[in-house]
Amino acid sequence: MNTIKLDDYQIHLGAFGEDLRDYLTKGNYNQVFIIVDEHTRADCLPFLEKQMGSVPYNIIEIQSGEINKTITTCSQIWQKMIEWGGGRRDLTINLGGGVIGDMGGFCACTFKRGMDFIQMPTTLLSQVDASVGGKLGIDFAEIKNSIGLFKNPLAVMVWPEFLKTLSLRELRSGFAEVIKHSLIADATQWSELRQIENMEVAHAVKFLEKSILIKKSIVEADPFESGLRKVLNFGHTIGHALESNALNTDQPLLHGEAIAAGMICESYLSLEKGLLPQDLDQITQFLLKQYGKCEFGTDSYPKLMALMQQDKKNDTTEINFTMLKSPGEALFNQVASEADIIASLEYYRQQ
Amino acid sequence: MNTIKLDDYQIHLGAFGEDLRDYLTKGNYNQVFIIVDEHTRADCLPFLEKQMGSVPYNIIEIQSGEINKTITTCSQIWQKMIEWGGGRRDLTINLGGGVIGDMGGFCACTFKRGMDFIQMPTTLLSQVDASVGGKLGIDFAEIKNSIGLFKNPLAVMVWPEFLKTLSLRELRSGFAEVIKHSLIADATQWSELRQIENMEVAHAVKFLEKSILIKKSIVEADPFESGLRKVLNFGHTIGHALESNALNTDQPLLHGEAIAAGMICESYLSLEKGLLPQDLDQITQFLLKQYGKCEFGTDSYPKLMALMQQDKKNDTTEINFTMLKSPGEALFNQVASEADIIASLEYYRQQ
Repeated sequence: MNTIKLDDYQIHLGAFGEDLRDYLTKGNYNQVFIIVDEHTRADCLPFLEKQMGSVPYNIIEIQSGEINKTITTCSQIWQKMIEWGGGRRDLTINLGGGVIGDMGGFCACTFKRGMDFIQMPTTLLSQVDASVGGKLGIDFAEIKNSIGLFKNPLAVMVWPEFLKTLSLRELRSGFAEVIKHSLIADATQWSELRQIENMEVAHAVKFLEKSILIKKSIVEADPFESGLRKVLNFGHTIGHALESNALNTDQPLLHGEAIAAGMICESYLSLEKGLLPQDLDQITQFLLKQYGKCEFGTDSYPKLMALMQQDKKNDTTEINFTMLKSPGEALFNQVASEADIIASLEYYRQQ
Repeated sequence: MNTIKLDDYQIHLGAFGEDLRDYLTKGNYNQVFIIVDEHTRADCLPFLEKQMGSVPYNIIEIQSGEINKTITTCSQIWQKMIEWGGGRRDLTINLGGGVIGDMGGFCACTFKRGMDFIQMPTTLLSQVDASVGGKLGIDFAEIKNSIGLFKNPLAVMVWPEFLKTLSLRELRSGFAEVIKHSLIADATQWSELRQIENMEVAHAVKFLEKSILIKKSIVEADPFESGLRKVLNFGHTIGHALESNALNTDQPLLHGEAIAAGMICESYLSLEKGLLPQDLDQITQFLLKQYGKCEFGTDSYPKLMALMQQDKKNDTTEINFTMLKSPGEALFNQVASEADIIASLEYYRQQ
């Protein structure tokens, strides 16, 4: 088992039972809440329950899906905590993907002005992405993560075995963040992983620790996203808009699927900007092979533009992007015009 | 004008125009939101508007009253911020009493994961109490401040002239915290202020700075309420329950009115505990003279007890109180039984 040390908490990578019981003993908590959805309750909770030792706990089950990452679901979680007489001396364990980690963490931090919480990410996306950075929150008014906080957990516990509970589609979705980390910061890793033909759990496990370390080095240099950390937004400005746009349709996109499309568009923007002189086609073809194509028409351009304007990383009315100088090297605070952005969406659609 | 320096912000006491314009210039904000209710819009906003110089701002008006300190009102505030394209580089100014300060601060801290905010308390209660300590939040499931955060503002600006906009009832309510500060920490101030026959603005202004300084010294010694800070809860365990109990009736209590009743009951508990050997009657008579008596019957005891159990300061199923050793000296983490608590409510009712 490996331990990755961050400023004020650790990521435990591997079988974490002993460490968990250690935290539970040291914290001397009044009670423990475990937040799950219907999937992690069935697939992951039995494993966690075995690790809890004799510590009693209350289970709070919410409905899975980004569509439920709302203030309404927060109210349900807070209500349960109140029913069980929850307080500041309790602990919350968030057992699930990004939705549970972001929302459960937000609820724990705001209930009675805050209790400790442990993140136990069960998807590849959340293991790679949400385990570093302390970003918590919910979607509001159709804008992803528009309400939230920066707050680090007591600890993160990553058990790679949980990845076996995922569908291939979910695994691929999470792998988009692994690809992103290599594109913005590690050319060697990019060369390695684009050899992958058919993605499987072993690929994810292979790149997991390295990918967390890339994110750690970026976040530690800029915890509150005032500069460098923005490179992590590569693929996310257009990707978030595509994801939000598809949210209430009959074909919702998984986060990584939207980000894969966003990375193609934003790589195109990089080329337009005179960066990334020769790798656009390679990036595009690899991502399309892995993720297929997400469908949207020209009629959604106005809504997509409005969603990008709303994105919280935009300080002004101009739209900021992170662009690639080359695979492994990114530049933040790059501005693109509406015409450029539409051209990038056209490029994607014509593939 | 006086300035009170705290760890990471300052309280500006007096005409604050120049300091405000300084913060606005240095912060280089994209935009400024001013949160008001119908009263502070009419009575206090005109003064603030004169101080804003040439800086443009958007006004967000919410309905006054503790009953509106809810997640629903937060959603209205966030919605307005979204409509105006709000972001992390904006500033929120909370112009109002405790409801606006607590809730507006919570909304500012959680919108797009947090923007700067300035507290501009307009009631005596918020000037004395909420200006130190960084407690933000809303009521949830009928429990006061059950959802919230600890987070310090960019600055607090206290203009005593705002006190002239208050009704005598509101002024008296706020003065309950001044009385509390003297009872827990300053015997000399207690001797002075219990000479007051008819309360007026001049009394509030006289004790304002001293009272803020008492709170400052306590909060700085224990910012996250793990020990000493609990002395500030004197009168609040029973007081909050009385306030919550009256919230949805046709005779709601102002916070200070409930706290005055709570201080009488908790002084009685102190005597029962063998503390406060000789001052109970003096405290009771002074508070009753200033605040009158709040009405509740024996039929509300079960609900009052349940509300006290829910209070977030209670770590276990036992009920914790801060009690008085003597006027000017308090002891926290004092436990009382249900029978003692009911006896204290009976003592109050029989006055």
